[in-house]
Amino acid sequence: MASNKIHLHIENTRKKASIYHITQERWDAACKHHRGLAGRLHVTIGWDGDILEDALKTADILVGVPARRDSLAGRAPRLRWIHSTSAGVDGFLPFDWLPPGVVFTNNRGAHGVKAEQYMRMAYTMLHTRMPQIIANQRARRWEQLFSPSIVGRTALVIGLGDLGGAAARAAKQLGLKVIGVRRTVRKSRWADAVHPYSRLDKLLPKADFVVLAAPLTAETRNLLGRERLRLMKQTAGLINISRAPVADYAALAGKLRRGELAGAILDVVDPEPLPAGSPLWDAPNLVITPHISCDDGEHYVGISLDLWFENLGRFLQNKPLRQRVDPRRGY
Amino acid sequence: MASNKIHLHIENTRKKASIYHITQERWDAACKHHRGLAGRLHVTIGWDGDILEDALKTADILVGVPARRDSLAGRAPRLRWIHSTSAGVDGFLPFDWLPPGVVFTNNRGAHGVKAEQYMRMAYTMLHTRMPQIIANQRARRWEQLFSPSIVGRTALVIGLGDLGGAAARAAKQLGLKVIGVRRTVRKSRWADAVHPYSRLDKLLPKADFVVLAAPLTAETRNLLGRERLRLMKQTAGLINISRAPVADYAALAGKLRRGELAGAILDVVDPEPLPAGSPLWDAPNLVITPHISCDDGEHYVGISLDLWFENLGRFLQNKPLRQRVDPRRGY
Repeated sequence: MASNKIHLHIENTRKKASIYHITQERWDAACKHHRGLAGRLHVTIGWDGDILEDALKTADILVGVPARRDSLAGRAPRLRWIHSTSAGVDGFLPFDWLPPGVVFTNNRGAHGVKAEQYMRMAYTMLHTRMPQIIANQRARRWEQLFSPSIVGRTALVIGLGDLGGAAARAAKQLGLKVIGVRRTVRKSRWADAVHPYSRLDKLLPKADFVVLAAPLTAETRNLLGRERLRLMKQTAGLINISRAPVADYAALAGKLRRGELAGAILDVVDPEPLPAGSPLWDAPNLVITPHISCDDGEHYVGISLDLWFENLGRFLQNKPLRQRVDPRRGY
Repeated sequence: MASNKIHLHIENTRKKASIYHITQERWDAACKHHRGLAGRLHVTIGWDGDILEDALKTADILVGVPARRDSLAGRAPRLRWIHSTSAGVDGFLPFDWLPPGVVFTNNRGAHGVKAEQYMRMAYTMLHTRMPQIIANQRARRWEQLFSPSIVGRTALVIGLGDLGGAAARAAKQLGLKVIGVRRTVRKSRWADAVHPYSRLDKLLPKADFVVLAAPLTAETRNLLGRERLRLMKQTAGLINISRAPVADYAALAGKLRRGELAGAILDVVDPEPLPAGSPLWDAPNLVITPHISCDDGEHYVGISLDLWFENLGRFLQNKPLRQRVDPRRGY
């Protein structure tokens, strides 16, 4: 390698779908928009650890969190920055493997466009009673299930980051009233009101749609548990685009089976892939999408690398990076 | 009846779903917004012909087209205006029963809000591969079917009236390119281009979404027949919110079974209700919704009567009515 260049190692895993693979071809395509920055890099691309140990010896930056993360300080003495190619970093918790002084960033910002489109669809599907209409089609049953206009209904969006912001934006586009819940209460352009998590029990009974868009952390695990699910209106619907353990799916399925909730659309389950034997597959009024809500199926790597190059510019100027994960906060 | 009042007879049928019934309660609710006009009316409300013959003897206006329409001139000597409570009047073709001098109006204008919401959902469902995802759920199969952003795709909207306008508006909101086809070519705020029906064969190969929103007439019957279906891209989707006979559903189902078309969402079938034995129910990548796309399930009568009262104002001032059906055109 040219010794005056910064060594970037890209670590891929074939365990993830191919849309997430940073292949040489996709890397080259991204570099075309960032020639100046790209020229300062020496790049290696590895797959499931094949060249990882060698690369770590000289790597300054790692894109993709390796499966084996112990003793990173010793294995990667020059490492200064690790970037996760997903937005959710709950799979890497706790962050005790992160060497001191190494910055950890995630891929938030790459998901807003698709998330907004998915959420517009999901709100409308629930409101239009599509889960029941789909079940009726399966049963070859014609039943005219009408619905009024969606305008004026209330969406409670839990988490107002990249995904929650998209969920709020989509809701406003449909004419919904938006109540946001976030850890750090501050105004949002897309929410009519923003509240702290401590207000959740008061807000749940107001919602026609509850949207889970918060990162999975120790604090948000089982956030929408059995007791809180009871606070939802019987006519309300639930949408989860965050992580499955944020809600109690067993309790949710029970409520759906008893008709205590109008419907749910879940883009995340646990585990993924969902086993064929899971009782979730045929819970009534439940639509499962296979974790496709927020990731662009053609341009995910391109979108992600564009964001990453912006951060590289900051890195090279010793400016604070964006999309930083706060190890104490857990996201 | 007070002889100086105009006699309006409202003819309901229990064969239609209850959201369409103009009950005394709904009539009274609508009158609250139109007290001046309502005060000039003597109103009778009938059900499936129970008081029809008596009412016709003195009726000036009929809301709801009666099942028995022969010899109307003799049975209803004072009749000057018949209003259909649905927008599609293909069920009353041919219009040889309409006495000369009687104006016939339909309910166009009452469907735009719901149609727009449904269409946003339908485009996004097709683009997000929901028909296949729904089938996978049924088969308990986890398969990550990704899709790119919908922005920039092309919708071909056939018919640009109340429903087609809503379909075009919804498409523009999603960032689609919109090509409109209509009988009378004139600019539309929501279409990037508008073409006559004669251009259809040239336009079909360009479309990612083909939307049927034209009224059913002698001219539009089988408009999207077997040959024209062949002109659609293999990756395209079809949405029908107009009337089933506008397309050849047998040919459509064949194309879906052979994988020659990405998917379809049909809100209209023939006959309705669709019999349990119809092969359409389980055609692959086909979603059937039970004719619910465009009608507000809570406020259909209220919305319709508000439009009707506007027309009554014109009627009383001897101004030309809106929403007039042209008997020669057939809609």
